[in-house]
Amino acid sequence: MEKKNGYKTDIQIAQETQLIPIKELVENDLDVKQDEVDLYGKYKAKLSLHILDRLNEKKDGQIILVTSINPTAAGEGKSTVTVGLAQALNKLNKKAIVAMREPSLGPTMGLKGGATGGGYSQVLPMEDINLHFTGDIHAITSANNALASFIDNHIHQGNECRIDPRRITWRRVLDLNDRSLRNVTIGLGGPTNGVPREEHFDITVASEIMAILCLASNLRDLRKRLSQIVVGFTFGNEPVTVAHLGYEGALTLILKEALKPNLVQTIEHTPAIIHGGPFANIAHGCNSLIATKMAAKLGDYVVTEAGFGADLGAEKFLNIKSRIGKITPSAVVIVATVRALKMHGGLNKKELKNENIQALKEGIPNLQKQIETIQSFGLPYVVAINKFLMDTDSEISTLLDWCYEEKHPAVLCEVWEHGGQGGVRLAEKVLETIDQSQNQFHYLYKEEDTIKQKIFTISSEVYGATSVQYTSKALKQIIEYEKFGWGELPVCIAKTQYSLTDEPTILGKPENFSITIRELKISKGAGFIVALAGNIMTMPGLPSKPAALNMNVTEEGYAVGLF
Amino acid sequence: MEKKNGYKTDIQIAQETQLIPIKELVENDLDVKQDEVDLYGKYKAKLSLHILDRLNEKKDGQIILVTSINPTAAGEGKSTVTVGLAQALNKLNKKAIVAMREPSLGPTMGLKGGATGGGYSQVLPMEDINLHFTGDIHAITSANNALASFIDNHIHQGNECRIDPRRITWRRVLDLNDRSLRNVTIGLGGPTNGVPREEHFDITVASEIMAILCLASNLRDLRKRLSQIVVGFTFGNEPVTVAHLGYEGALTLILKEALKPNLVQTIEHTPAIIHGGPFANIAHGCNSLIATKMAAKLGDYVVTEAGFGADLGAEKFLNIKSRIGKITPSAVVIVATVRALKMHGGLNKKELKNENIQALKEGIPNLQKQIETIQSFGLPYVVAINKFLMDTDSEISTLLDWCYEEKHPAVLCEVWEHGGQGGVRLAEKVLETIDQSQNQFHYLYKEEDTIKQKIFTISSEVYGATSVQYTSKALKQIIEYEKFGWGELPVCIAKTQYSLTDEPTILGKPENFSITIRELKISKGAGFIVALAGNIMTMPGLPSKPAALNMNVTEEGYAVGLF
Repeated sequence: MEKKNGYKTDIQIAQETQLIPIKELVENDLDVKQDEVDLYGKYKAKLSLHILDRLNEKKDGQIILVTSINPTAAGEGKSTVTVGLAQALNKLNKKAIVAMREPSLGPTMGLKGGATGGGYSQVLPMEDINLHFTGDIHAITSANNALASFIDNHIHQGNECRIDPRRITWRRVLDLNDRSLRNVTIGLGGPTNGVPREEHFDITVASEIMAILCLASNLRDLRKRLSQIVVGFTFGNEPVTVAHLGYEGALTLILKEALKPNLVQTIEHTPAIIHGGPFANIAHGCNSLIATKMAAKLGDYVVTEAGFGADLGAEKFLNIKSRIGKITPSAVVIVATVRALKMHGGLNKKELKNENIQALKEGIPNLQKQIETIQSFGLPYVVAINKFLMDTDSEISTLLDWCYEEKHPAVLCEVWEHGGQGGVRLAEKVLETIDQSQNQFHYLYKEEDTIKQKIFTISSEVYGATSVQYTSKALKQIIEYEKFGWGELPVCIAKTQYSLTDEPTILGKPENFSITIRELKISKGAGFIVALAGNIMTMPGLPSKPAALNMNVTEEGYAVGLF
Repeated sequence: MEKKNGYKTDIQIAQETQLIPIKELVENDLDVKQDEVDLYGKYKAKLSLHILDRLNEKKDGQIILVTSINPTAAGEGKSTVTVGLAQALNKLNKKAIVAMREPSLGPTMGLKGGATGGGYSQVLPMEDINLHFTGDIHAITSANNALASFIDNHIHQGNECRIDPRRITWRRVLDLNDRSLRNVTIGLGGPTNGVPREEHFDITVASEIMAILCLASNLRDLRKRLSQIVVGFTFGNEPVTVAHLGYEGALTLILKEALKPNLVQTIEHTPAIIHGGPFANIAHGCNSLIATKMAAKLGDYVVTEAGFGADLGAEKFLNIKSRIGKITPSAVVIVATVRALKMHGGLNKKELKNENIQALKEGIPNLQKQIETIQSFGLPYVVAINKFLMDTDSEISTLLDWCYEEKHPAVLCEVWEHGGQGGVRLAEKVLETIDQSQNQFHYLYKEEDTIKQKIFTISSEVYGATSVQYTSKALKQIIEYEKFGWGELPVCIAKTQYSLTDEPTILGKPENFSITIRELKISKGAGFIVALAGNIMTMPGLPSKPAALNMNVTEEGYAVGLF
């Protein structure tokens, strides 16, 4: 988030906020009974899954999905707008609830320093949320690595399932940025120390278990999905699942508390449910389905966020999460900033501080393409222009004028600086749009389409590609996957978030390009096929001066160095 | 814990117990203010460190240390006696508090299935305590591995501190039993993926950070100890510390909540503080100093446990923890069982079910040696004979008669079967012993003794060895360590827990043996030198049929398969 002289930092604003004890917030604002809440400290709670059963007959609230243009190094503030919009709806006396992802510790220690919104639109307590929160990600790390130890132990103890150690696809994870663990060899040191093989560590949020937790509808469904995880292949190249090994019960046990969504509040005391946080490339990139559904039972409006830009996050929210969870958003908010559009128009980060109408105009087609994607799903939408302090009036009116000319509903919002009050016009426009537009939501592809058809549909309609190329490995995998009966699963394309193409440096709205599918990966438990377009980093590294160098704790126990 | 037909399992007893909400327990039983408690669900809480400041002037309660003979495969039930004794003190209207270690997830998934006492002397909620509890061990895993990633990143980014990758002593950890990670190579895959080197994973409870957390007196002391961790050596063979790298603040931040002790209750609602759980061989093996001190401020009697037998756990409690924390136990309870003594007398596990007075008599010298060790510290003690269902009357009277003849205070206790009521006679005897005995507590060695003198003192006076042998590596390290100024630290001998010797198969009370010190390891942050006598397993493996295979969750969310 942007900081300027004279403005407070996010952590300053956060630490100055007087929070309401979460117990009071539950009692006053939510239809939740006392025995359906487990407090985790004074300002965090887990909500019982019984709430979904008890309110089963209640009409769901309206879901507002927040997405954005392709992200750039300038920052778009999508989380900030998500929080700010919910706060603004509250100001209009609407019962709104935020549903968001939980941040990962690795990037916090590396570059980001935190991921809980910014300015006067944050979820709190940001210190706890950015560190261990209620332990969900730790539980996923434990379950993921317990499964890995069970697999290696199975081989070590005689390999009854005939798992080919060269074909194990299950990887260990840590919730850290640790490049040294990307490629390792394990099981060294002789026969009492396991079977030697190649291994790779990912960051925890890249674990299929994170995706599963975010798509499961209850404990039973969680166990079923865990049992279906494909951990690798036999010497005969047949898939081996968790059910073959017999550990789905233990994994469910490790995850039983993590499946319960977490309740916190925003700076303005709007309830916020923060739960799960899968990648938006190799996974579907949104908070848990249970969190979204519970928010819809407890609020009249749910403001929720999808990862990265609309080409990745929103596409997956709409084609995967909505399909599995049978949910229909009432409207989509597309966040754009002058700064980021200027980068799409060709500027580098250092050139952003000067007004540049030409670059802005050249970047606008990126916004246009993302709007078209939302239109192709048949959904009402509003463009939210997230104001940064250095945006000039001419830049903002250039962008707004373009929206008006093209008949796109658009509003300037100032939720970073002014909290909910800075988003009231956006909230009004969203409500008006829901009210006045036709919702003709439909998926872009059918389950029974072939894998290639699904990939082509997404590539052409969402990315704007003219064709799809496949490596011979990918072609071979498509044949195998259809043979294994996986052909009817939705496809989750793993592509760079920075570009509509599979090449991160091509910004704006590229034309006449092809998407190359390198390789497939089965996420049978989560319920989708991952198609890899380009190299996706699933274990980040640390920079030369990690954010951790500036972190500390005061004598009173307060965090220092989270942004 | 032992189970028999017609008897309930531990988890059955646990799940049938009606717990008191921990908030009520705090309000009714403890001198703790509302803002000094953070609830973690209804039956767990973290206690603020402010309590220690507020009650600084209050007289400390009496500390009763529970230890045992050398453990055997028969099980001694030391945790069960610890819990049962505290419950029994409560029955005598004494304000007693349990202070215990938190269990590790790895062994739970492997063989043990749980480690929270047994029968009617358990700490609850056992499901939570045995799984993630309040996340302390996860925080330690995160801090340990964040430090590892910082070290490898430091080298990758130019290695300003000139760390020799061959001499890194800091190891990664996971809270799992995973033999395949004992010996690995990391940093493979070319220059963008780190610097290749050999690495080893330990189980989290073996991390020096666990030992540090358990010996720190407050946040400031925690940061100081973290800063002093030696992570390896330079190309010039000089020690490199966390302070050299600059990450003590970030590590403290990651651990700030984990430093707060956890409050739960026993089956009979006795308050129990469960916090920290370091190994009793490579570390000092007892719950955190903060937990012990807080229990002593909140109760008139603290019943606390040391790991393994008196030769390892109690020796380290008394020579290391008591020295660092300036605490003096009022009495020691030495747990023995007929079954375990019969194993020390030469029987194997299958032969235990038949009465065998001769084997029992031949095993008693092991108890005798452990009693002598406690006597050498000048401490009052009571022998607790923990009754197992199959013990015969003649066996029990043989053991009691020996104690009476040798003038050792001794009591039979039945806390597994009868809870606190089964320990009332033990409690009475402990109170009487505290009342009537002279406490002449002293450490066995002085800080200014040389490293070799300290090792010889422990080996001869505690283990009964006649001499100490050193490998040439160990001799070289002793010279180096004294050069680095580490010579005045206490020594923590890492030895098998099964034998008084360094050879696990030699049970009973061996005579005329030598201890061999293979290697030294510096735990500068924790504040001791580890001297390794024999091979110590710091990363367990899974058995061919792990306990995890029988674990599950019911539809209502209850755990199945924890013992």
